[in-house]
Amino acid sequence: MNAEIIAVGTELLMGETVDTNSSYLADELAKIGVELQWATKVGDHPGRLEEAIERAWRRSDITITTGGLGPTSDDLTRESIAAVMGEEMEVQKDLLAHLTSQFESRGVKMPATNIKQATLIPSAEVIPNPMGTAPGWWVEKDGHAIAAMPGPPREITHMWDNQVGPRLRSLNPEIAIVTRTLKTFGITEGGLDEMLSPLFQSENPNLGIYSKQDGIHLRAIASASTETEAQALIEPMEREIRRVAGHAIWGEDDDTPVSAALDALSGRDLTLAVAEGFTGGLLSSTLLESSSASSILAGSIVITGGDSDRLILDTSLDNPDSPRPYDASNLALAVRDKIGADVGLAMTPLVSEETEDSGPVGTTHIAIASGGEVFVRSGHYPTRRLRIRARAVTHALLELAKCLETGAGGHESRWG
Amino acid sequence: MNAEIIAVGTELLMGETVDTNSSYLADELAKIGVELQWATKVGDHPGRLEEAIERAWRRSDITITTGGLGPTSDDLTRESIAAVMGEEMEVQKDLLAHLTSQFESRGVKMPATNIKQATLIPSAEVIPNPMGTAPGWWVEKDGHAIAAMPGPPREITHMWDNQVGPRLRSLNPEIAIVTRTLKTFGITEGGLDEMLSPLFQSENPNLGIYSKQDGIHLRAIASASTETEAQALIEPMEREIRRVAGHAIWGEDDDTPVSAALDALSGRDLTLAVAEGFTGGLLSSTLLESSSASSILAGSIVITGGDSDRLILDTSLDNPDSPRPYDASNLALAVRDKIGADVGLAMTPLVSEETEDSGPVGTTHIAIASGGEVFVRSGHYPTRRLRIRARAVTHALLELAKCLETGAGGHESRWG
Repeated sequence: MNAEIIAVGTELLMGETVDTNSSYLADELAKIGVELQWATKVGDHPGRLEEAIERAWRRSDITITTGGLGPTSDDLTRESIAAVMGEEMEVQKDLLAHLTSQFESRGVKMPATNIKQATLIPSAEVIPNPMGTAPGWWVEKDGHAIAAMPGPPREITHMWDNQVGPRLRSLNPEIAIVTRTLKTFGITEGGLDEMLSPLFQSENPNLGIYSKQDGIHLRAIASASTETEAQALIEPMEREIRRVAGHAIWGEDDDTPVSAALDALSGRDLTLAVAEGFTGGLLSSTLLESSSASSILAGSIVITGGDSDRLILDTSLDNPDSPRPYDASNLALAVRDKIGADVGLAMTPLVSEETEDSGPVGTTHIAIASGGEVFVRSGHYPTRRLRIRARAVTHALLELAKCLETGAGGHESRWG
Repeated sequence: MNAEIIAVGTELLMGETVDTNSSYLADELAKIGVELQWATKVGDHPGRLEEAIERAWRRSDITITTGGLGPTSDDLTRESIAAVMGEEMEVQKDLLAHLTSQFESRGVKMPATNIKQATLIPSAEVIPNPMGTAPGWWVEKDGHAIAAMPGPPREITHMWDNQVGPRLRSLNPEIAIVTRTLKTFGITEGGLDEMLSPLFQSENPNLGIYSKQDGIHLRAIASASTETEAQALIEPMEREIRRVAGHAIWGEDDDTPVSAALDALSGRDLTLAVAEGFTGGLLSSTLLESSSASSILAGSIVITGGDSDRLILDTSLDNPDSPRPYDASNLALAVRDKIGADVGLAMTPLVSEETEDSGPVGTTHIAIASGGEVFVRSGHYPTRRLRIRARAVTHALLELAKCLETGAGGHESRWG
C-alpha cells in the first residue's frame, strides 16, 4: 500500500508554520508498513487544493489531508474532496447536535459558519475528534481511501492513534507489523553502515539507519501474517545487530538519554547535583523535562567561569579560558558536597585558549563523581551553535548512565 | 512571480527528518514578494522526481529543489532536471578541478562517484557552494527558472543569501521589496486582529499576523519600484500599528527576547544573577546562546525546591509545593547578593498545591531585583510541556527588559 499526504494551509507556504504533521505521519505510516510516496503542501486555494486531491486520489492508495477543516471560508478541504468525488455535502443532524452541545458546554453560542463542520458526503464517514471541533472525514471507494484530518498537532496524534491508524491497518488485516529501534552513541553512521552492511540488504525485516540528535538509530520493520511471526523475523536481526554493535547501543524504542540517566540513578536510589559550564543550564532543564527528575536532581548550578563559581561552590576554575580535566573533577566533587547529593556531574565551559593541559579550543571536560571515584571524559565542540550544546547534553547524560551501569572508565575518551 | 519548492529525499518521507528547509525558503520567498504556491516532498525515485520537476516547470515561474545533489546513485536531482530539459549532463573541467582540490585540502582522495557533482547541462549555470561539495544549478529558459540547491540547512541558507535570493530578486529588477516585522507580547492574535482589522484589507503593503513562541508578530511587506518608495508605503502602516498597539510591541525585525534583555542590561552596564525554578536552567541556557551573555550573566542557580536551595542561597521556599510572590522576591534578592550581581532575576517552581497566597496550581512567580526595588509578576502555566517552559523564558526575559527600560511595575500582572 502506498500513501500521499496533502498538508493544507496558506500559512504553511508563507513560512510562518513548520509542517511537523507530515513528518509525524510519515513516521507512523512507515511503522505500519505503508509507503509514503508524496507529501505536498498547498494553500487555501480552491483550484489548487482540488487539483492536488484529484491527483492524489488517482495515483495513491491512501490520501491523508491535514488542515482546512475549520469553520471559515478559507477552510476548503471538505468542499474540495466533495468536488473530486462529484458528491454533495449534506448537514448531518447528529453531528450538528453534537457540535452545538460542544459549544454550549463551553458557554458559547455556535457561530453559523461552524455548520459546515457537521457535513458529510455520501461516501464519507465521520472520524470523531474529541480534541477539537472539526471532525475528520473517512472516504473509501474503488480501492482508494482519503482520511481528512484537522491541522492542530494534538488533534492529529489523537485521531491517528484512535482512528486513522487502526483503520489503515485494517485495510491490510492479514498483515501484522513489528518495529524495533536500537539507539547507538559514539559511532558514525558510515561506520555502522559498514559493520552491518549485509543486514541492509534484507527486505523483511527491513533495516533503516537514521542520524538523530541522540546518536544513530537503527530501525527494523518486519511484516508477517501474525505479530508472533513478525516478531520472529525481527529477532535474529536484532541479535546480529547486538552482536556486532552492542557496545554502542544505549537504548531501544522509546528510551531517551534523559530516561537512561534517570533510570540509572533512581534504580540505585541516588540523587544528582549538577554544575554545568558549556551547556549553561540546558542539561538541567533537559533532565527536568521528565517529571520524575525533580526528586532526583537535588540542585544545579551554572558555571560562568567568573567569581560567582567561587562564591557559590567555594571553588572555581584556575583559568576560566583554559579549563582542564582536573577542573571538571574538582567541580563535580564540590557541587556534590555543596548540595549534599550522591552523584556529582560537572561540565566545564569550553576551552577558548589552548594550554598544555586544556585540550584544543572547543573542548569541554565532563566529570562524574560517584562513590569514591571520579570519571572524566572530554568532548570537542568546535562551534557554539545550539544543536551542538544539545548534543553535549545528550553525551553527558549517556556517560552518566554508562558510568553508573558499568562503573567503567576513569580514563579520558573523546567524543564530539 | 510564483514559485514551487520540491524537497528531495526518501528520508523526508520516512519521518526521520523534518523538512525545515521548505519553511525557511517559504519565509524568504515571502520577503521578496514571490508567491509560493506549492511545496512537494518526493523520495529518491527517478520516475516520481522527474514527474514532480516536469509539473513544476510547467505550472510555476520558479522551481526550487533542495537535496538530491550528493554523490551517490540515490542522488537524482541533476539527472531528473537534465531529463526534463531534454539535455545531456557534461563534466566541467573547472568544476572538477575545484572539487578535486577541495578533497585534497582535506587530505582525502576524491571518490570517483563525486564526479557527477562537477557536471552541468547546457542551460545550467553553476551556483557556488562554499559550505559543501555539491554546487547548485541555476537553469533559466523560456521565462522559467530552476534553482537546484543542496539539502543541508547551513548550505541552503548561505546559498540563498549569496546567490539564489539575489538572482530571484534580479528577475524582477523593477520591484523593490521592504518588510517590517513588529513583535508584540501579552496580547492575543484575535485581539490584535480586531484592533488592526482595517489594515489587513491593504494589499500593498500587505500585513500578515503570525503566532510565534515569543508572541504575536505583525509583518508588513511593501513593493514599489524603488526601496525609498516601498519604505514610504510601509511607514504610515507602521505608525498606525504603533499608535493602536504600541503598548504591546517589544521589538522589531531581528530582535529576540534574549537581545532585548541583554541590550537592556548591557546598555546600563549591569550584570545579572538568575535563580530559576519552573524553567529549570532553560532561561540561563537561552541567554547563553548569545555570546555576549557570558560577560553579563554572572551566575545562575536552578531552584529545585529542596534543601539544596538553602545550602546554596541561605534561603529557600517555605513550602516548595506552594511558592508565593514573596518567595520570588526573596530568591531574587538572595541570588543577587550571593553572586554579587547588579540585578537578580528569580522564577519559582510551579505551584502544585494551591494555598491562599500561592495562586492557582500551575502558577509561577517571577521577581526582578534591580537597584532598591523588586518587581514581581505571576504567570500561569497549566501544563508542563517543553514549549510552555520556553514561553515562560520568553516572558521572563521580556519582563526583565521592560522593567529596566521603564522601571514600571511593582504590582502583580498575569500572563500565561
